[in-house]
Amino acid sequence: MWDDRAGQKREKRMKFEQVINGILPLDKKAMELAQARWNTLGKPLHSLGRLEELVVQLAGIMQTPMPKIEKKAVIVMAADNGVVEEGVTQTGQEVTKIVTENMTKDKASIRVFARMSGAEVFPVDIGIATEVDCPGIIPRKIKMGTDNIHKGPAMTREEAIEAILVGVDIVRELREKGYHMFATGEMGIGNTTTSSAICAVLLEQSVEKVTGKGAGLTSQDLLHKIEVIKESIAFNQVDKNDPIDVLHKVGGLDIAGLVGCFLGAAYYRTPIFIDGFISSIAALLAIKLAPACRDYMFPSHCSNEPAGKLVLDAIGFLPYILANMCLGEGTGAVMGFTIADYALTAYYGIPSFEETAFGTYEELV
Amino acid sequence: MWDDRAGQKREKRMKFEQVINGILPLDKKAMELAQARWNTLGKPLHSLGRLEELVVQLAGIMQTPMPKIEKKAVIVMAADNGVVEEGVTQTGQEVTKIVTENMTKDKASIRVFARMSGAEVFPVDIGIATEVDCPGIIPRKIKMGTDNIHKGPAMTREEAIEAILVGVDIVRELREKGYHMFATGEMGIGNTTTSSAICAVLLEQSVEKVTGKGAGLTSQDLLHKIEVIKESIAFNQVDKNDPIDVLHKVGGLDIAGLVGCFLGAAYYRTPIFIDGFISSIAALLAIKLAPACRDYMFPSHCSNEPAGKLVLDAIGFLPYILANMCLGEGTGAVMGFTIADYALTAYYGIPSFEETAFGTYEELV
Repeated sequence: MWDDRAGQKREKRMKFEQVINGILPLDKKAMELAQARWNTLGKPLHSLGRLEELVVQLAGIMQTPMPKIEKKAVIVMAADNGVVEEGVTQTGQEVTKIVTENMTKDKASIRVFARMSGAEVFPVDIGIATEVDCPGIIPRKIKMGTDNIHKGPAMTREEAIEAILVGVDIVRELREKGYHMFATGEMGIGNTTTSSAICAVLLEQSVEKVTGKGAGLTSQDLLHKIEVIKESIAFNQVDKNDPIDVLHKVGGLDIAGLVGCFLGAAYYRTPIFIDGFISSIAALLAIKLAPACRDYMFPSHCSNEPAGKLVLDAIGFLPYILANMCLGEGTGAVMGFTIADYALTAYYGIPSFEETAFGTYEELV
Repeated sequence: MWDDRAGQKREKRMKFEQVINGILPLDKKAMELAQARWNTLGKPLHSLGRLEELVVQLAGIMQTPMPKIEKKAVIVMAADNGVVEEGVTQTGQEVTKIVTENMTKDKASIRVFARMSGAEVFPVDIGIATEVDCPGIIPRKIKMGTDNIHKGPAMTREEAIEAILVGVDIVRELREKGYHMFATGEMGIGNTTTSSAICAVLLEQSVEKVTGKGAGLTSQDLLHKIEVIKESIAFNQVDKNDPIDVLHKVGGLDIAGLVGCFLGAAYYRTPIFIDGFISSIAALLAIKLAPACRDYMFPSHCSNEPAGKLVLDAIGFLPYILANMCLGEGTGAVMGFTIADYALTAYYGIPSFEETAFGTYEELV
């Protein structure tokens, strides 16, 4: 029995290392060809700016100058957070399960946004605190919610790695089903608390600066939330130079799953869109673990959480959309899909200079 | 004959004053009801940020808490600029006509973008330098392109007002055909030169700061363009306190037509999206003429022209989309339509708290 579990641990550790070390750079040749194609289209050179860059990046990711996206998926990692018992949230953790179940019906915000963006929603139970028995939810529970970070680590180091591998695996499975573009979403009461804790540690910022009211705290409650985060970081003796240490001590299973999605997307050469604050924190962790995975990511919007812009700045992403949203679930990320749709529609739809009959704009600069 | 023309002038002046003075404030009651409806939807309060504000503004414009948009149009004002003979552009002015004609076929960028956003394209010949005989182009030519601003005013004061009234009229006609949301586009070789001239005067900025390479000048050509703009402003003795003086002396017919679209949209209570640099300059002029019209406008993207952000800042708009585009034709503005679509889809699609079965998030702040 002991040997078995040690063997499983070793195997997971190896799988994790394999993903981290298996992320390859973008295909430069495909990127050059894609830019060359843009330059033949009947419009001033480079005048579609970041839409051109987006397609060029897709070409590099997908290793073809003619990237096409048919099926798009938003992966929603759902998990509970033990720290909720400290009174850092407005609603109880039963809401995590209810909203996640609503995602399988037409009752959640992300379903509305995903429908408009032409994407399908895949909620994953990676650590909801109660039993979940709902056909549309992918069952990958690591445990019944994390432990309270105010009293100790959220999970063990091994559980964090296991949760990351769940994300990698979901990406692989959805790819096999033909999904070639991902958005990242989450649902988990208390996850702005864990995200702010990670943010404060990794960006070396004051907890006050990176903590907000989440889904609607009073100003008094916000002060309490800040205290809880400060004490949790101190109590756990978090090592800011070790992303997994930060994640397992003051993070959450939803965040760990999303880290896995980002790593998996890069490992399997698939474009993936960052959502808001929580998703950006997962992206930051993934980049700390494997810097090469950044090239497979796309920003979408900038969260209205106080640290939303801070995290995007730290990982060097300018959002495409400024809408001051902070709903989560992947609602901003799927709007990123639409930016990609515009870019690809232009790439394939704008006629060439020859067809437009006014000769080329030369690149004179 | 003389009396007739004087009478026509007087009539146009009166029509213009009627529009300027006939723009009413938004419907506050409809806006309150729309916000109240947002607050019943199953999501954290205000968590859709600017999407919520967008629908509230639509409610105020359309005088109903349940605004619906069915038909959307992008109005593209096309005109030539006499200043092109000073060598401020990379291509000749024949391109204006060719691209405008391409807009009636599937050969222009705006057609590709409009198709994706579900909008129809209405190009208007408000001053192309040659005869245009093309069924899809609305013929409203004021004259065969403007005069060279380097040698005198672009047009007379009366012509500027006439061009503004063309914009007002196009809005009225399209509204009668059932279009209830507009985007503003333009096509006119040389129109970044006129826009930069207006920008420098109205924002009291140096010409260097607000002038860019347009569709692709060399650095040497850019210095020449800056000189031409400086001399044109000086030669015409432009009065920065009189928007019509600025417009007729160093502006263009396309810009004047767009000023009319903005004023007309406000006069006829219709939402209208700003596009990039040139369109923003027209919005700025419209706001100077009738400050109330600003409430009927929506931003879209931020142009990559150096003054793009400057003008949006001056009129107090934060773009929804950051894509560094500078193609013109309304390509960014129709992407704004899609932001509105997301907002309305959420407004009508997200189920209420009752339906989501987890009780309300209370507003505690």
